[in-house]
Parts: sequence; C-alpha cells; structure tokens
Amino acid sequence: MFSELEFYVRYAETDAMGVVHHASYLVYMEEARSHFARERGQSYADFEASGYFLVVSEAEARFIAPARYGDKVKIRIEVEEFKSRRITFSYKIYETGKNTLLVEARTRHICINKEGQLSVIPETWREVWSEKSD
Amino acid sequence: MFSELEFYVRYAETDAMGVVHHASYLVYMEEARSHFARERGQSYADFEASGYFLVVSEAEARFIAPARYGDKVKIRIEVEEFKSRRITFSYKIYETGKNTLLVEARTRHICINKEGQLSVIPETWREVWSEKSD
Amino acid sequence: MFSELEFYVRYAETDAMGVVHHASYLVYMEEARSHFARERGQSYADFEASGYFLVVSEAEARFIAPARYGDKVKIRIEVEEFKSRRITFSYKIYETGKNTLLVEARTRHICINKEGQLSVIPETWREVWSEKSD
Amino acid sequence: MFSELEFYVRYAETDAMGVVHHASYLVYMEEARSHFARERGQSYADFEASGYFLVVSEAEARFIAPARYGDKVKIRIEVEEFKSRRITFSYKIYETGKNTLLVEARTRHICINKEGQLSVIPETWREVWSEKSD
Repeated sequence: MFSELEFYVRYAETDAMGVVHHASYLVYMEEARSHFARERGQSYADFEASGYFLVVSEAEARFIAPARYGDKVKIRIEVEEFKSRRITFSYKIYETGKNTLLVEARTRHICINKEGQLSVIPETWREVWSEKSD
Repeated sequence: MFSELEFYVRYAETDAMGVVHHASYLVYMEEARSHFARERGQSYADFEASGYFLVVSEAEARFIAPARYGDKVKIRIEVEEFKSRRITFSYKIYETGKNTLLVEARTRHICINKEGQLSVIPETWREVWSEKSD
Repeated sequence: MFSELEFYVRYAETDAMGVVHHASYLVYMEEARSHFARERGQSYADFEASGYFLVVSEAEARFIAPARYGDKVKIRIEVEEFKSRRITFSYKIYETGKNTLLVEARTRHICINKEGQLSVIPETWREVWSEKSD
Repeated sequence: MFSELEFYVRYAETDAMGVVHHASYLVYMEEARSHFARERGQSYADFEASGYFLVVSEAEARFIAPARYGDKVKIRIEVEEFKSRRITFSYKIYETGKNTLLVEARTRHICINKEGQLSVIPETWREVWSEKSD
C-alpha cells in the first residue's frame, strides 16, 4: 500500500535560507495523499463531497537535508496503519537527482462527518486505503 | 476612508531571493481588508456568515522595492471606488524603518451571494466601506 | 513562444470560500515560467546561479472563474514582449475538465544582477525567451 | 523562558474545509520564535546576518481543534531544552475568544554556520534562549 509522486520544487516554496521552507513539506505530503487516492481511481474531493473529512490529527517530521529550487523531489507515501476511523500515513521525501533522503514524516488522521463527529470510513474508501476491506 | 496596518514580515513569506515573495503581498493586502473592517467594528467573517462573499475579480500590483525578513511593513488601504455591487481598494505598502514604498496595488471585488450571483452589498457593510450609505 | 503546464490543484491552495485562493495563481504562474525554461532545456536555478535574477516588477490578473480542489488546471504561458533587460509574460489559466477560462494575467519582469542593478539578459537566456537572439 | 504572541487568522491561511490549514500552524510557530527573540531585544535576522542559521530538524504537532478565519489565536512558546548546539521549543496555540487549546507542538533546531556545519550557538543568543549563559 504505497504510492510515489514526483514533482519540481516551486520557487514560492523556498525561503530566505535558500531552501524549501519546512512547512512546504506538509503541503507536499498532503498532495501525496491526493495522488495516492487518484492512483486507486478515487478523488479525495469526492470523499468530502460525500460528507466526510479526513482531518490531520497529528504530524511529525524529521528534516534531514534541504531541497532547493530546481530540485525534483519524490515522495513515497505508505499506509502505516488503517483502522475503521483512523489512518496513519508515513512518508519519505527524496531529492530525485542524488537520491538523498530529505524528510521522514508521519501524519495521523481521523475521519469525521459534516457535524464534526468521529465516523467510520465509508466502504469505498476502506478499499482505497487498506489491503483488504473487512 | 482608509486604514493602516503594521506587522513584521514572517520568515515563511520570503523566498530564495532573500526577499518577500511577491504573492505574499496579496495576502498582506487581504489582511489589510480584514483590518479595515475590524477598525469599523465589523468582522468580514460575519459578512460571509450572512451569506455574502466579496470575491477578488481583479488585482494589479507594482513591486517597487523588496521587503526582507526582519522588516516591519505598513499597509495603507483605501476605498478607491464604492458601488452597490463592487468595491475597489488601493494599497500602498511601506517598509516602516526607512519609510520606503515597496508596493502599489489595487484589487477589485464583486459581492456575490451563496449561489454565486452578483449581489447588492448589504446595508451594514455599505457603512463600512463607503463614506455615506445611500 | 508559449508553453503549457498542467497539474492538480493542491488542497493547501484553497481557502475557506472553497476555491483556490487568488494568491495561489501567482505561484502557478511562477511555476509556468520555470516550466517554460525547462522545456527549452534550461533551469531558472542556473540563471540565478550565474548571478542574475528575473524579478517581478508588475503583475495584473483578472479572476474570471474559481478552480476547486480536485480540479486539474492548465496554464498557457506566452512571452508577450522581450527586451534586452525586460520581459513580459502573459498567462491564461484553464480548468482542464470543462475547459473553463479561470484567470487571465500578465507579469512584467526586469533582469537584475547580484548588486541589484538592472542588467542585460545573458545570451543563453535570450534564446530561451525570444524567437531570435539579436 | 516563554513568550506569548497573539494575532488574527488570515483568510489565506484557511482551506476548503473552512478552517486554518494545518501547515499554517508551523508558520505561526516560526513567527512565535521571531517574537520570542524580539521580546528579548534581538532580531533573528541579525542571527542570520552574523552567519548562523537555526534550522528546524524536527517538528511534531497535535491538532486538537480547528481555528477559523475571524478567530484571534494566541501562541505560547517556551524553551523546552537548551544545549550548546541545539534548542527545543514547545508551543501551545489557543483560540483567544473561547480559550480553546487548538494545537500542541514542539520543534527541534540545530545551529549551523554558513558552511552548513553544526555550530555552537553564539554567546549573545545563548542569553536570548537560556536562563543563564554558561
């Protein structure tokens, strides 16, 4: 259960230190989640349209090496744990050219409905995020 | 009909050129609009809660000099034109320390309702954005 | 002298109105400039590494229709005017699915060196941005 | 060794879920670090000007409740651990109005010099970030 996404660093994602701002990696990771769903034939937009939200409840990241504008980065996203109401994704972000590991991270999510209540992840999406849906 | 807002440049707003990224100024200008309403006793959040949105239909900016992290910037926002369904704001952004003019800009807005239809700006808000409400 | 770039809207680029925040389009346009150079075998990172910067001196945009998370957008970037020390790019941003025009924009740039002085665009890059280099 | 900073949520910091995007809190926390230094008579811009950088090596956050546009948030930043080459800051972010705890977080930093080498934090800054400088 993993997916890989590759793209160029955008200039706006850098900061005055000349490297990618650390908050930008959270955005990269979010886009990797979107990509993960698209690769499995689903759009997270539809998940929300159906009345559910997968909110980030926790995030942790180790920033090992910096990426720079001009670099191509690759994110490997993996489902680390899948429960009926929760998911944990883990990420490794690499600089493609030199294959340097830039960031190791993890985000935990809970599924809520429109009323903000903790909810069971709908069937269709269990198939997206878990090996077997049972 | 003007208002002034001053704050420090945030590190995340800079880019690898070592200066404030040009898109950050649009965010500053938006915050100046929020501040403009707050100074007049209103919250733009309430405007939206009442079912209206003041969407940006046009923006133009001249970037004259760069601001840097550590700088304090001052935005002067002015209502340039007020019509029943439209507003134009103009902005001048200064670096406070040296009083350097950094950016001159203008944003045009239209008032729409939840259905996305062009709407007359509600009475309460006409008083916020125009000298006289008639 | 044009180039096209297509990508998905990222969730972080949206705002509470449920649509792409207007400042995000400036970031899209900047990425289109990076792509334009890459398509011609050059990296803008090298331009800066060689001691030059193409700073944004003016920007103007008309926001015609909103893009949403889940949408794929296409940017068409064109060199509108090329002078020895200045370039103007124009942009049209579309929502790919419905081929809706979302944004029409233009950015003007000046070439400066590390000392911040207005400079002639180096030969290699004249070939990138202009039909003929003379 | 703590400091508090209060400001309004900016519209651009929200996302389509109608709440502050989780990556925005990292930017808030960074601004709290800037404020912490300013309250002690120093500017982090000078730290960098003197040839040092305090890079984020790790970050972790628990997102407990969402902030919305219109909310005023308060960040309490504290030096959790100070070593000669490393600092850990902890944060609590509140929604001011209801005094709700929104986020609990921690960032770890290392001091590097211009060559990217791990460095001892200069004397002046030890006084900023530690109770006693010894």
